Amino acid sequence: MLIQSRDNPKIKEYIRLRDKRSERESAGAFILEGARLIDDAIRENAGLISAFYTRASAEKFCRTVEALRSLLNDKAYEITEEVSLKMSGTVAPQGIYACASRLDKTPSLDKIVYGEKFLVLNGLADPGNIGTVLRTADAVGISGVYLCGCCDIYNPKTVRSTMGSLFRVPIEDRMTYADAVAALKAAGVSVYASVVDKDAESLRGFNFPPCSAVVIGNEGNGLSDDDVKLCDGRITIKMSGTVESLNAATAAALFLWELSK
Amino acid sequence: MLIQSRDNPKIKEYIRLRDKRSERESAGAFILEGARLIDDAIRENAGLISAFYTRASAEKFCRTVEALRSLLNDKAYEITEEVSLKMSGTVAPQGIYACASRLDKTPSLDKIVYGEKFLVLNGLADPGNIGTVLRTADAVGISGVYLCGCCDIYNPKTVRSTMGSLFRVPIEDRMTYADAVAALKAAGVSVYASVVDKDAESLRGFNFPPCSAVVIGNEGNGLSDDDVKLCDGRITIKMSGTVESLNAATAAALFLWELSK
Repeated sequence: MLIQSRDNPKIKEYIRLRDKRSERESAGAFILEGARLIDDAIRENAGLISAFYTRASAEKFCRTVEALRSLLNDKAYEITEEVSLKMSGTVAPQGIYACASRLDKTPSLDKIVYGEKFLVLNGLADPGNIGTVLRTADAVGISGVYLCGCCDIYNPKTVRSTMGSLFRVPIEDRMTYADAVAALKAAGVSVYASVVDKDAESLRGFNFPPCSAVVIGNEGNGLSDDDVKLCDGRITIKMSGTVESLNAATAAALFLWELSK
Repeated sequence: MLIQSRDNPKIKEYIRLRDKRSERESAGAFILEGARLIDDAIRENAGLISAFYTRASAEKFCRTVEALRSLLNDKAYEITEEVSLKMSGTVAPQGIYACASRLDKTPSLDKIVYGEKFLVLNGLADPGNIGTVLRTADAVGISGVYLCGCCDIYNPKTVRSTMGSLFRVPIEDRMTYADAVAALKAAGVSVYASVVDKDAESLRGFNFPPCSAVVIGNEGNGLSDDDVKLCDGRITIKMSGTVESLNAATAAALFLWELSK
């Protein structure tokens, strides 16, 4: 089927999912733009609901569009260039889009294996930061990420910045911080707070127990004292000179690197 | 003096410096917006040329404005709110601005001390990435950063994202990549290329010689084969699963962390 109108209900639904967290949450769905991200979603068996492609993109990304057609049948729609421009969040759209269901690969704490590591993000507000951190967590082989009070992991900017890691890393984004920490501790995982405090233990050379988690706090404010108290220990990155703190995604990367040693 | 017109030559010059790399290069100057950045510049003795503040900002940031007045005398101008709105690059301007001379704190290779480490950025294109990397380099105590074919370090977005590290880390941004590597090697510094290649040496556990430098390449393309050949070795971050690469600022952070051990 060819969709020619920007007011087609499917297109309007896509745009609502693109723009509004509340829509994504009530529909339990999110959007993907671009061939690379859609290829990742197909490879990782993400639950695609529908797809949209221009004639030009069907030529350029023929294998991707073929895969979408065979997966989705009549839920893969051809669209005009004009409709594509309306859907795109980029300046140079590739003309290929999809809607997917919320991911259901959550961290499993039932049977923790020796050496499993977890990450808790508490109150991160920057969509790009969360995506970058997820990508790093994937690269170092983290078993699961808890997002508590963070901005939406299904924000298109976040999804894009994960570079496909969103489909691979088990994620839990519906627990409170206190519940996530309690669940980890109950499963035998030691939980460490990342803090900016010269008196905390130094990350450099810290020996994490075999099953450990690290908590990273908000970009500007870090973790509150109450949040820190729930953890088993406090760890800091010792810095030279007058540097006050690192970018949150950078700090998370160094913690993940040491955690996954 | 009170500047009331958005067409005042001083204001127009500020805006040109804000918007155009070519202007910054020909004038040898750049702009700073916000009290925190200007405080950093004052503390680190950056070469301030002029400053602009609204009456409201003079009340809110009285110590900063006092310091600017005593440093700059009649080159510290009061401006109207309307002029401030024209100058600001943010949605909620603080109403305090300055122009500063290009920094002249360059890395010194004349007398390298045991343990000195350097960073070479080759072709980085994202202003935010460069700022974040500079902040990390400062935090781990890097002796100097060479920027070769990168986007402008004096871009307002980069300046902001360095969080003051721009004023502290010695920077050289006018050498070619080949010249920078040659100068480092001539000074006895071992230079290592950061690559994405499973056959390269692993960063994890790599023993950098006491005086070493790491080269980070462009966000999308990494380093070219020719660029790598100029180095003494090739090092990679081994990644799990299907992850292809890390964000450039993240990769740089991990290299800097291991380099500065």
